[in-house]
Amino acid sequence: MSEGNGKRALVDALKACGAVKFGDFTLASGKKSTYYVDIKKASTDPATLKVIAKEAARVINGLDIDFVGGVVLGGVPLATAVSLETELPLVLIRKSEKDYGTGGLFVGEFQKDSKILLLEDVTTSGGSVKDAIVAIRDAGGIVDRVITVVDRDSGAEKNLSDIGVKLVPLVRASDLI
Amino acid sequence: MSEGNGKRALVDALKACGAVKFGDFTLASGKKSTYYVDIKKASTDPATLKVIAKEAARVINGLDIDFVGGVVLGGVPLATAVSLETELPLVLIRKSEKDYGTGGLFVGEFQKDSKILLLEDVTTSGGSVKDAIVAIRDAGGIVDRVITVVDRDSGAEKNLSDIGVKLVPLVRASDLI
Repeated sequence: MSEGNGKRALVDALKACGAVKFGDFTLASGKKSTYYVDIKKASTDPATLKVIAKEAARVINGLDIDFVGGVVLGGVPLATAVSLETELPLVLIRKSEKDYGTGGLFVGEFQKDSKILLLEDVTTSGGSVKDAIVAIRDAGGIVDRVITVVDRDSGAEKNLSDIGVKLVPLVRASDLI
Repeated sequence: MSEGNGKRALVDALKACGAVKFGDFTLASGKKSTYYVDIKKASTDPATLKVIAKEAARVINGLDIDFVGGVVLGGVPLATAVSLETELPLVLIRKSEKDYGTGGLFVGEFQKDSKILLLEDVTTSGGSVKDAIVAIRDAGGIVDRVITVVDRDSGAEKNLSDIGVKLVPLVRASDLI
Protein backbone atom coordinates (compact mmCIF):
# COMPACT_ATOMS: atom_id res chain seq x y z
CA MET A 1 0.00 0.00 0.00
CA SER A 2 1.36 3.46 -0.86
CA GLU A 3 1.68 6.21 1.74
CA GLY A 4 -1.44 7.97 0.42
CA ASN A 5 -3.51 4.78 0.47
CA GLY A 6 -2.26 3.96 3.96
CA LYS A 7 -3.30 7.36 5.27
CA ARG A 8 -6.69 7.04 3.61
CA ALA A 9 -7.14 3.58 5.20
CA LEU A 10 -6.31 5.10 8.59
CA VAL A 11 -8.73 8.01 8.17
CA ASP A 12 -11.43 5.51 7.17
CA ALA A 13 -10.63 3.29 10.17
CA LEU A 14 -10.75 6.27 12.57
CA LYS A 15 -14.17 7.24 11.24
CA ALA A 16 -15.46 3.65 11.19
CA CYS A 17 -14.56 2.99 14.86
CA GLY A 18 -16.24 6.20 16.01
CA ALA A 19 -13.03 8.04 16.93
CA VAL A 20 -13.98 11.05 14.81
CA LYS A 21 -17.29 12.74 15.44
CA PHE A 22 -18.72 15.66 13.48
CA GLY A 23 -21.03 18.31 14.91
CA ASP A 24 -20.72 21.42 17.06
CA PHE A 25 -18.38 20.88 19.97
CA THR A 26 -16.92 23.14 22.63
CA LEU A 27 -13.43 21.92 23.53
CA ALA A 28 -11.94 21.93 27.05
CA SER A 29 -10.07 25.11 26.03
CA GLY A 30 -13.40 26.86 25.36
CA LYS A 31 -12.80 26.92 21.58
CA LYS A 32 -15.57 25.82 19.23
CA SER A 33 -14.87 22.94 16.88
CA THR A 34 -16.80 21.19 14.11
CA TYR A 35 -15.22 17.84 14.93
CA TYR A 36 -14.13 15.89 17.98
CA VAL A 37 -11.50 13.14 18.24
CA ASP A 38 -12.24 10.41 20.77
CA ILE A 39 -8.99 8.52 20.28
CA LYS A 40 -9.78 5.90 22.97
CA LYS A 41 -12.25 4.42 20.45
CA ALA A 42 -9.29 3.80 18.16
CA SER A 43 -6.82 2.52 20.74
CA THR A 44 -9.28 -0.04 22.12
CA ASP A 45 -10.37 -1.31 18.69
CA PRO A 46 -8.01 -4.01 17.40
CA ALA A 47 -8.84 -3.45 13.71
CA THR A 48 -7.95 0.25 13.99
CA LEU A 49 -4.88 -0.53 16.15
CA LYS A 50 -3.60 -2.78 13.35
CA VAL A 51 -3.96 -0.03 10.75
CA ILE A 52 -2.17 2.41 13.07
CA ALA A 53 0.64 -0.09 13.71
CA LYS A 54 1.15 -0.67 9.98
CA GLU A 55 1.27 3.06 9.27
CA ALA A 56 3.71 3.67 12.12
CA ALA A 57 5.88 0.76 10.97
CA ARG A 58 6.09 2.38 7.54
CA VAL A 59 7.47 5.55 9.16
CA ILE A 60 9.90 3.59 11.35
CA ASN A 61 11.15 1.37 8.52
CA GLY A 62 14.74 2.34 7.75
CA LEU A 63 15.17 4.54 10.85
CA ASP A 64 17.82 3.67 13.42
CA ILE A 65 15.61 2.97 16.45
CA ASP A 66 16.17 0.68 19.47
CA PHE A 67 12.85 0.98 21.35
CA VAL A 68 9.24 2.01 20.83
CA GLY A 69 7.90 4.04 23.75
CA GLY A 70 4.41 4.94 24.92
CA VAL A 71 3.33 7.41 27.59
CA VAL A 72 0.89 6.04 30.18
CA LEU A 73 -1.95 5.45 29.56
CA GLY A 74 -3.10 6.48 26.08
CA GLY A 75 0.18 5.69 24.34
CA VAL A 76 0.54 2.18 25.76
CA PRO A 77 -1.83 0.18 23.50
CA LEU A 78 -0.45 2.07 20.48
CA ALA A 79 3.19 1.49 21.38
CA THR A 80 2.45 -2.18 22.13
CA ALA A 81 0.84 -2.67 18.72
CA VAL A 82 3.79 -0.96 17.02
CA SER A 83 6.27 -3.05 19.04
CA LEU A 84 4.51 -6.23 17.87
CA GLU A 85 4.48 -4.98 14.26
CA THR A 86 8.13 -3.83 14.15
CA GLU A 87 9.59 -6.34 16.66
CA LEU A 88 11.25 -3.42 18.50
CA PRO A 89 11.15 -3.77 22.31
CA LEU A 90 8.80 -1.63 24.34
CA VAL A 91 9.34 1.13 26.92
CA LEU A 92 6.42 2.54 28.92
CA ILE A 93 6.79 5.97 30.51
CA ARG A 94 4.72 6.88 33.56
CA LYS A 95 3.62 10.46 33.82
CA SER A 96 4.82 11.42 37.26
CA GLU A 97 6.26 10.09 40.46
CA LYS A 98 2.90 10.03 42.20
CA ASP A 99 1.65 7.48 39.66
CA TYR A 100 4.31 4.90 40.11
CA GLY A 101 5.22 4.51 43.77
CA THR A 102 8.01 1.98 43.95
CA GLY A 103 7.50 0.85 40.34
CA GLY A 104 9.86 3.37 38.73
CA LEU A 105 9.23 5.93 36.02
CA PHE A 106 9.94 3.48 33.18
CA VAL A 107 8.80 -0.04 32.39
CA GLY A 108 11.30 -1.64 30.00
CA GLU A 109 15.04 -1.37 30.16
CA PHE A 110 16.72 1.06 27.83
CA GLN A 111 20.40 1.94 28.17
CA LYS A 112 22.37 5.15 27.94
CA ASP A 113 22.25 6.29 24.28
CA SER A 114 19.36 3.94 23.41
CA LYS A 115 17.31 5.49 20.61
CA ILE A 116 13.63 5.60 21.56
CA LEU A 117 10.78 6.55 19.25
CA LEU A 118 7.61 7.64 21.07
CA LEU A 119 4.01 6.99 20.03
CA GLU A 120 1.26 9.40 21.03
CA ASP A 121 -2.47 9.10 20.43
CA VAL A 122 -3.41 12.77 19.96
CA THR A 123 -1.16 15.82 20.12
CA THR A 124 -2.44 19.31 20.86
CA SER A 125 0.36 21.38 22.43
CA GLY A 126 2.51 18.27 22.90
CA GLY A 127 2.99 18.96 26.61
CA SER A 128 2.57 15.42 27.90
CA VAL A 129 4.96 13.86 25.39
CA LYS A 130 7.45 16.67 26.02
CA ASP A 131 7.55 15.76 29.72
CA ALA A 132 8.25 12.14 28.77
CA ILE A 133 11.08 13.19 26.45
CA VAL A 134 12.70 15.24 29.22
CA ALA A 135 12.47 12.26 31.59
CA ILE A 136 13.99 9.87 29.02
CA ARG A 137 16.81 12.30 28.24
CA ASP A 138 17.50 12.77 31.97
CA ALA A 139 17.91 8.98 32.13
CA GLY A 140 20.39 9.00 29.22
CA GLY A 141 18.09 7.90 26.40
CA ILE A 142 17.81 9.61 23.00
CA VAL A 143 14.50 10.78 21.51
CA ASP A 144 14.40 12.74 18.30
CA ARG A 145 11.10 11.61 16.81
CA VAL A 146 7.49 11.22 17.95
CA ILE A 147 4.75 9.60 15.90
CA THR A 148 1.27 10.87 16.73
CA VAL A 149 -1.89 9.25 15.38
CA VAL A 150 -3.76 12.55 15.13
CA ASP A 151 -2.14 15.99 15.38
CA ARG A 152 -4.61 18.75 16.09
CA ASP A 153 -2.40 21.45 14.47
CA SER A 154 -2.28 23.29 17.79
CA GLY A 155 1.39 23.86 18.49
CA ALA A 156 2.86 20.41 19.15
CA GLU A 157 4.99 20.41 15.99
CA LYS A 158 6.65 23.74 16.92
CA ASN A 159 6.96 22.91 20.65
CA LEU A 160 8.69 19.61 19.91
CA SER A 161 10.86 21.12 17.18
CA ASP A 162 12.10 23.62 19.81
CA ILE A 163 13.60 20.71 21.77
CA GLY A 164 15.03 19.01 18.69
CA VAL A 165 12.24 16.48 18.14
CA LYS A 166 10.46 15.87 14.84
CA LEU A 167 6.71 15.22 15.13
CA VAL A 168 5.38 12.81 12.51
CA PRO A 169 1.56 12.85 12.40
CA LEU A 170 -0.05 9.81 10.78
CA VAL A 171 -3.12 11.98 10.27
CA ARG A 172 -3.57 15.73 10.66
CA ALA A 173 -6.79 17.32 11.86
CA SER A 174 -7.12 18.79 8.35
CA ASP A 175 -7.20 15.25 6.89
CA LEU A 176 -10.28 14.47 8.96
CA ILE A 177 -12.51 17.34 7.94
CA MET B 1 0.76 -26.51 18.22
CA SER B 2 -0.70 -28.65 21.02
CA GLU B 3 -1.40 -27.25 24.48
CA GLY B 4 1.72 -28.93 25.90
CA ASN B 5 3.97 -27.61 23.13
CA GLY B 6 2.49 -24.13 23.52
CA LYS B 7 3.19 -24.10 27.23
CA ARG B 8 6.75 -25.33 26.63
CA ALA B 9 7.26 -22.58 24.03
CA LEU B 10 6.05 -20.01 26.57
CA VAL B 11 8.32 -21.33 29.35
CA ASP B 12 11.24 -21.19 26.89
CA ALA B 13 10.32 -17.64 25.83
CA LEU B 14 10.05 -16.48 29.47
CA LYS B 15 13.51 -17.88 30.20
CA ALA B 16 15.02 -16.53 26.95
CA CYS B 17 13.85 -12.94 27.57
CA GLY B 18 15.22 -12.95 31.11
CA ALA B 19 11.83 -12.94 32.85
CA VAL B 20 12.77 -15.94 35.00
CA LYS B 21 15.91 -15.79 37.07
CA PHE B 22 17.32 -18.60 39.20
CA GLY B 23 19.34 -18.09 42.39
CA ASP B 24 18.68 -17.25 46.02
CA PHE B 25 16.11 -14.48 46.34
CA THR B 26 14.32 -12.90 49.26
CA LEU B 27 10.85 -11.84 48.16
CA ALA B 28 9.05 -8.67 49.27
CA SER B 29 7.09 -10.85 51.71
CA GLY B 30 10.36 -11.91 53.39
CA LYS B 31 10.07 -15.48 52.06
CA LYS B 32 13.08 -17.14 50.43
CA SER B 33 12.77 -18.31 46.83
CA THR B 34 15.04 -20.13 44.39
CA TYR B 35 13.59 -18.23 41.45
CA TYR B 36 12.36 -14.75 40.63
CA VAL B 37 9.89 -13.67 37.95
CA ASP B 38 10.58 -10.27 36.37
CA ILE B 39 7.50 -10.25 34.17
CA LYS B 40 8.20 -6.75 32.77
CA LYS B 41 10.97 -8.39 30.71
CA ALA B 42 8.25 -10.48 29.04
CA SER B 43 5.65 -7.76 28.57
CA THR B 44 8.14 -5.39 26.89
CA ASP B 45 9.59 -8.07 24.58
CA PRO B 46 7.51 -8.42 21.40
CA ALA B 47 8.61 -12.00 20.67
CA THR B 48 7.49 -13.13 24.14
CA LEU B 49 4.31 -11.04 23.93
CA LYS B 50 3.40 -12.88 20.73
CA VAL B 51 3.83 -16.29 22.38
CA ILE B 52 1.70 -15.13 25.34
CA ALA B 53 -1.00 -13.79 22.99
CA LYS B 54 -1.16 -17.06 21.07
CA GLU B 55 -1.43 -19.10 24.27
CA ALA B 56 -4.13 -16.80 25.66
CA ALA B 57 -6.02 -16.94 22.35
CA ARG B 58 -6.04 -20.74 22.60
CA VAL B 59 -7.73 -20.47 26.02
CA ILE B 60 -10.23 -17.86 24.76
CA ASN B 61 -11.09 -19.74 21.57
CA GLY B 62 -14.67 -21.01 21.88
CA LEU B 63 -15.49 -18.98 25.02
CA ASP B 64 -18.30 -16.43 24.88
CA ILE B 65 -16.30 -13.22 25.53
CA ASP B 66 -16.98 -9.62 24.43
CA PHE B 67 -13.86 -7.79 25.67
CA VAL B 68 -10.28 -8.44 26.75
CA GLY B 69 -9.32 -6.37 29.80
CA GLY B 70 -6.00 -5.41 31.37
CA VAL B 71 -5.32 -3.77 34.70
CA VAL B 72 -3.03 -0.71 34.56
CA LEU B 73 -0.14 -0.91 34.03
CA GLY B 74 1.26 -4.45 33.84
CA GLY B 75 -1.80 -5.97 32.22
CA VAL B 76 -2.08 -3.39 29.42
CA PRO B 77 0.58 -4.63 26.94
CA LEU B 78 -0.63 -8.21 27.51
CA ALA B 79 -4.30 -7.37 26.98
CA THR B 80 -3.41 -5.30 23.89
CA ALA B 81 -1.48 -8.20 22.37
CA VAL B 82 -4.38 -10.57 23.09
CA SER B 83 -6.88 -8.08 21.66
CA LEU B 84 -4.85 -7.92 18.43
CA GLU B 85 -4.58 -11.72 18.30
CA THR B 86 -8.26 -12.45 19.03
CA GLU B 87 -9.79 -9.28 17.47
CA LEU B 88 -11.77 -8.74 20.68
CA PRO B 89 -11.97 -5.07 21.73
CA LEU B 90 -9.93 -3.83 24.67
CA VAL B 91 -10.85 -2.47 28.09
CA LEU B 92 -8.22 -0.94 30.39
CA ILE B 93 -8.92 -0.74 34.10
CA ARG B 94 -7.19 1.89 36.22
CA LYS B 95 -6.33 0.89 39.76
CA SER B 96 -7.92 3.66 41.76
CA GLU B 97 -9.58 7.02 41.54
CA LYS B 98 -6.40 8.89 42.43
CA ASP B 99 -4.73 7.56 39.26
CA TYR B 100 -7.28 8.74 36.78
CA GLY B 101 -8.48 12.22 37.63
CA THR B 102 -11.12 13.12 35.08
CA GLY B 103 -10.22 10.23 32.78
CA GLY B 104 -12.58 7.68 34.37
CA LEU B 105 -11.85 4.27 35.83
CA PHE B 106 -12.15 2.48 32.48
CA VAL B 107 -10.74 3.08 29.00
CA GLY B 108 -12.92 1.28 26.46
CA GLU B 109 -16.68 1.12 26.44
CA PHE B 110 -18.29 -2.01 27.73
CA GLN B 111 -22.02 -2.25 28.34
CA LYS B 112 -24.15 -3.75 31.08
CA ASP B 113 -23.78 -7.56 30.84
CA SER B 114 -20.70 -7.33 28.59
CA LYS B 115 -18.50 -10.37 29.21
CA ILE B 116 -14.93 -9.32 29.96
CA LEU B 117 -11.96 -11.65 30.28
CA LEU B 118 -9.03 -10.17 32.22
CA LEU B 119 -5.32 -10.69 31.53
CA GLU B 120 -2.82 -10.49 34.38
CA ASP B 121 0.96 -10.70 34.21
CA VAL B 122 1.73 -12.41 37.53
CA THR B 123 -0.71 -13.52 40.22
CA THR B 124 0.30 -14.01 43.86
CA SER B 125 -2.74 -13.48 46.10
CA GLY B 126 -4.73 -12.03 43.19
CA GLY B 127 -5.59 -8.85 45.12
CA SER B 128 -5.06 -6.36 42.30
CA VAL B 129 -7.13 -8.26 39.75
CA LYS B 130 -9.83 -8.85 42.40
CA ASP B 131 -10.19 -5.07 42.86
CA ALA B 132 -10.60 -4.68 39.09
CA ILE B 133 -13.28 -7.40 39.00
CA VAL B 134 -15.25 -5.66 41.76
CA ALA B 135 -15.04 -2.35 39.84
CA ILE B 136 -16.20 -3.97 36.58
CA ARG B 137 -19.07 -5.75 38.32
CA ASP B 138 -20.11 -2.49 40.02
CA ALA B 139 -20.31 -0.99 36.52
CA GLY B 140 -22.53 -3.85 35.28
CA GLY B 141 -19.91 -5.93 33.45
CA ILE B 142 -19.46 -9.68 33.85
CA VAL B 143 -16.11 -11.29 34.69
CA ASP B 144 -15.83 -14.99 35.37
CA ARG B 145 -12.36 -15.77 34.07
CA VAL B 146 -8.86 -14.37 34.43
CA ILE B 147 -5.84 -15.52 32.42
CA THR B 148 -2.54 -15.00 34.20
CA VAL B 149 0.81 -15.47 32.48
CA VAL B 150 2.51 -16.82 35.63
CA ASP B 151 0.68 -17.92 38.77
CA ARG B 152 2.91 -18.11 41.83
CA ASP B 153 0.68 -20.74 43.56
CA SER B 154 0.15 -18.32 46.44
CA GLY B 155 -3.58 -18.08 46.90
CA ALA B 156 -4.90 -16.30 43.80
CA GLU B 157 -6.75 -19.38 42.50
CA LYS B 158 -8.65 -19.83 45.79
CA ASN B 159 -9.25 -16.09 46.33
CA LEU B 160 -10.71 -15.66 42.83
CA SER B 161 -12.72 -18.87 43.06
CA ASP B 162 -14.31 -17.42 46.23
CA ILE B 163 -15.82 -14.63 44.10
CA GLY B 164 -16.87 -16.95 41.29
CA VAL B 165 -13.90 -16.38 38.98
CA LYS B 166 -11.81 -19.11 37.38
CA LEU B 167 -8.07 -18.38 37.21
CA VAL B 168 -6.37 -19.86 34.14
CA PRO B 169 -2.56 -19.75 34.48
CA LEU B 170 -0.66 -20.06 31.20
CA VAL B 171 2.32 -21.14 33.30
CA ARG B 172 2.51 -22.13 36.97
CA ALA B 173 5.51 -21.40 39.14
CA SER B 174 6.06 -25.18 39.29
CA ASP B 175 6.48 -25.26 35.48
CA LEU B 176 9.41 -22.86 35.75
CA ILE B 177 11.56 -24.73 38.25
